[in-house]
Amino acid sequence: MLIVKKFGGSSVANRERIFNVANRCIEDFRAGHDIVVVLSAMGDSTDDLIALAKDINPSAPRREMDMLLATGEQVSVSLMAMAMASLGVPAVSLNALQVPMITNSRYSNAQLKSIGSERIMAELENRKIVIVTGFQGVNKAGDVTTLGRGGSDTTAVALAAALHADVCEIFTDVNGVYTCDPRVVPEASKLGEITYDEMLELASLGAKVLHNRSVELAKKYGVQLVVRNSMNREEGTVVKEDDGMMEKMLVSGIAIDKDADRISIIGVKDQPGVAFSIFNALAKKNINVDMILQSIGRDGTKDISFTIDDGELGNALEVMETLKKTLGADKIDYEEKVAKVSVVGAGMATHAGVAAKIFEALYNTGINIRMISTSEIRVSVLIDETDADRAARAIHEAFELEGLNR
Amino acid sequence: MLIVKKFGGSSVANRERIFNVANRCIEDFRAGHDIVVVLSAMGDSTDDLIALAKDINPSAPRREMDMLLATGEQVSVSLMAMAMASLGVPAVSLNALQVPMITNSRYSNAQLKSIGSERIMAELENRKIVIVTGFQGVNKAGDVTTLGRGGSDTTAVALAAALHADVCEIFTDVNGVYTCDPRVVPEASKLGEITYDEMLELASLGAKVLHNRSVELAKKYGVQLVVRNSMNREEGTVVKEDDGMMEKMLVSGIAIDKDADRISIIGVKDQPGVAFSIFNALAKKNINVDMILQSIGRDGTKDISFTIDDGELGNALEVMETLKKTLGADKIDYEEKVAKVSVVGAGMATHAGVAAKIFEALYNTGINIRMISTSEIRVSVLIDETDADRAARAIHEAFELEGLNR
Repeated sequence: MLIVKKFGGSSVANRERIFNVANRCIEDFRAGHDIVVVLSAMGDSTDDLIALAKDINPSAPRREMDMLLATGEQVSVSLMAMAMASLGVPAVSLNALQVPMITNSRYSNAQLKSIGSERIMAELENRKIVIVTGFQGVNKAGDVTTLGRGGSDTTAVALAAALHADVCEIFTDVNGVYTCDPRVVPEASKLGEITYDEMLELASLGAKVLHNRSVELAKKYGVQLVVRNSMNREEGTVVKEDDGMMEKMLVSGIAIDKDADRISIIGVKDQPGVAFSIFNALAKKNINVDMILQSIGRDGTKDISFTIDDGELGNALEVMETLKKTLGADKIDYEEKVAKVSVVGAGMATHAGVAAKIFEALYNTGINIRMISTSEIRVSVLIDETDADRAARAIHEAFELEGLNR
Repeated sequence: MLIVKKFGGSSVANRERIFNVANRCIEDFRAGHDIVVVLSAMGDSTDDLIALAKDINPSAPRREMDMLLATGEQVSVSLMAMAMASLGVPAVSLNALQVPMITNSRYSNAQLKSIGSERIMAELENRKIVIVTGFQGVNKAGDVTTLGRGGSDTTAVALAAALHADVCEIFTDVNGVYTCDPRVVPEASKLGEITYDEMLELASLGAKVLHNRSVELAKKYGVQLVVRNSMNREEGTVVKEDDGMMEKMLVSGIAIDKDADRISIIGVKDQPGVAFSIFNALAKKNINVDMILQSIGRDGTKDISFTIDDGELGNALEVMETLKKTLGADKIDYEEKVAKVSVVGAGMATHAGVAAKIFEALYNTGINIRMISTSEIRVSVLIDETDADRAARAIHEAFELEGLNR
C-alpha cells in the first residue's frame, strides 16, 4: 500500500515526539508499505516566526511572509529525516519547490494547481520514506506560497490524490471523529465511519478535527481519509464516499458553535431587493453570513435576522447602520450570547421527522429556539449560548448516540 | 552602479541591526544604484539549528543537515525584505533555488557551478532591491546544498561575478584589513588597498576578515572587493588586482596563527621516497600540512618536521606512529605551544632583504625561530606561542607599519 500520513505541529514539537512519529512511520515501512509523510512546523514555531515578522513590519508583504513561514516546515521535515536515519531507515525530505507543489500566486492563501509526482515516486522506488513540507507551495515563478488555514491537511490529501495513495491518515490529538465534543457530552461515541458530506457539515460547523477544505478535496478525488490519534493505536474514523453499503445514520454528529452572533434589522419595507441590498453590502466587506431568517411581511414591513462569526460583529454593525437609513428600517438589533447547535446525518435526507425529534428534545429541556436552518443532511438551531451544552446533551440522548459502535 | 553587499550573521542578529542594514542599502538604492544584498543567518541561529540536529542524530545525513541549515538564511532574507518594505522600498528575497545558485552535490561543502542571473536582473530592472540567501546552493536534482565555511562571502563574490557587478562590499565588524590584529598591535594601520595575492596570503594565514575561498574567486573573475564596517561609514579596504599603479608594499600585513602544532619524525633513513611516504599517508587521512622542514642528512639519517592545525594532532600522531616502524625512525616528537607568524607583502617579490629584516627584528627581541617557510610574497616563521604577539609587534615596528596611510 501507498500510505500518506500527516502529522500536525504538536506531534513534532520536540525530540521525543519526533521519534514517536518516526517509529510509527517506520513500522508501516518495514511491513512493506510505501510511506509519504506530511509535516507541519514544530509546535509554536510558526507563531514565533509571525511574531518576529510583526516586530519588523506589522503589515509585511505576503510574499515575504510566505517565504518566512515556509522555513518552519523545512525544519521539521529535515529533522524527521535525520531521526529516521538514526533509526536505520533511509528517508528524504522535500520542500514544496522540490516536489513540486504548484499553486496560484495568492500568497498566504494559495490554492494548489498541480503536483509533480515524479520525484516522490522515484524516491519511493528506491525504498525511501519521503517526508514533505505541509502548508506550502510554489507558484509558476518559483516563489514560495502558503496554503492558509488547514494547509497541511490539504497538502496531505492533495498528495494522496496525486500519488493515487491507498489511504491518507490524518493524525491528531483525538481518537477520531465523535458524535459530539466529549468535553461537552462525556458519553459521546467515536464514529468508525462517516461520509465526506457528513464530515464536511461537521467540519464547517465547528468540529475542529479536519478542515473542510481538505475534506472537499478528498471527496473530489475519492481519497479515503482516516482520522487517528498520534499518541495511541486506536483505529480512528474512516471518512469516505457513501458506498451504499454504509448504514446511513440518522444522526452522526452534533456540532456546537459558540462563536456565532445574531444581527437583526427590524421594520424594513416589504419590497423586492431588500435582502439583496443587505447581503450584497456584507459580501463586499468580506463578511460571511451563516444562518438567515426573514419574518413573514406584516403591515408592509418585515424583519431580517442573520448570524455571523463574532470576529465580524463590529464591521457588520457598521454596514447595517449605513443600510438602516437607505432601507428606512426602524432599528438594528444584535445579540452576542447565542450559539449554533447543528445536527448532522446522511440518513436525514431520506428520513422524515429528524427535525421534529430535535425540536422535541429541546422543548422537553426547556430550551427556546431563536432561528432554524436546514440542509439535506443537517439541522441547525440558534439558541442562548448558556443553553448550548445542555441542548447538545439532550439531542445526543434523544438519538441514542451513546455507546454507538458504527 | 550595480553593488553586491554582503552582511554576516551578527549584522542581522536583531530588529535594530536589520534596520541598520536596510537603511544602508536603501541609501545607495536611492542614489540610483542597483543593489543586491547577500545575508547570512541571524546571529547564532545556525548554531541553534545544528544543536537541534545533533540532539536528534549526532551523525545526521549531510543532505538533511543542508536542508535544515538553509532555513536560517531564508529567515533573514525574508525579514530584511519586510524591513525594507516598511521603509517604503520594494524588495524581494530569493533563496538559492530561486536564483538559482547551482552547485555540485558535495553536501555541507558544495562548490558553485553556475548562477542564473535572469531572475535577479529582472527584479533589478523593476527597481527592486534583491536579497539573496548566502551560504547555500542547489544541485541539479533540486536538492539544497551549503557551501561550507566562508560560504556567504563566496555567494556574494560569485553573484558579483555573474551579474558583472561594479563592486562587492563585504561588511564585517572591523574597519577593513589591518597591517596586524589591532588587539595584538594597537598601532596597526588600516590598509586602503591590498592585492588579491596579499589578501590570499593573509586570509589563509589567520587574518579572519575574509575567507580565502572568496578571495580566490574574486581574483579569478576580477571582482573588486571592499571590506567595510557595517556599524560605521569608514571607507574600508579595497582588494583588487595589482594594476601596476598600486605602490607595492614591502610588507602589507602580519598574521598570527596560534592554532599550529609541530610534529617531527627523528632519525629516518636518508633515502628517496621518505617524504613521499609521510605526506602521502597524511593526505590520505585528509590532514592538511602547512610548513615543512627537512634537516640536511647526517650519519645516513635525517629529521622531518611539519606543522598542522591543532585539531588534527591526534589523527596525525596516529599516522606517524604507524610510519615510525616502517620508516625505521628513532622517535616522533611534537609540540603544541607553537605559533606561526607570517609577514605578507607584494613588494617582497622584487625586494631583497625582507626576510633578513624580519630575522633581525626577532633576534633583537630575543625570539628563537624554529622553522622558516617562504613564498614569493610571504615569509612565515614558527616560534614559541608565548613569543607570538611580541614577534608581531617587533616586525610591525621594524617595517614602520604604524600610522601607515596607504
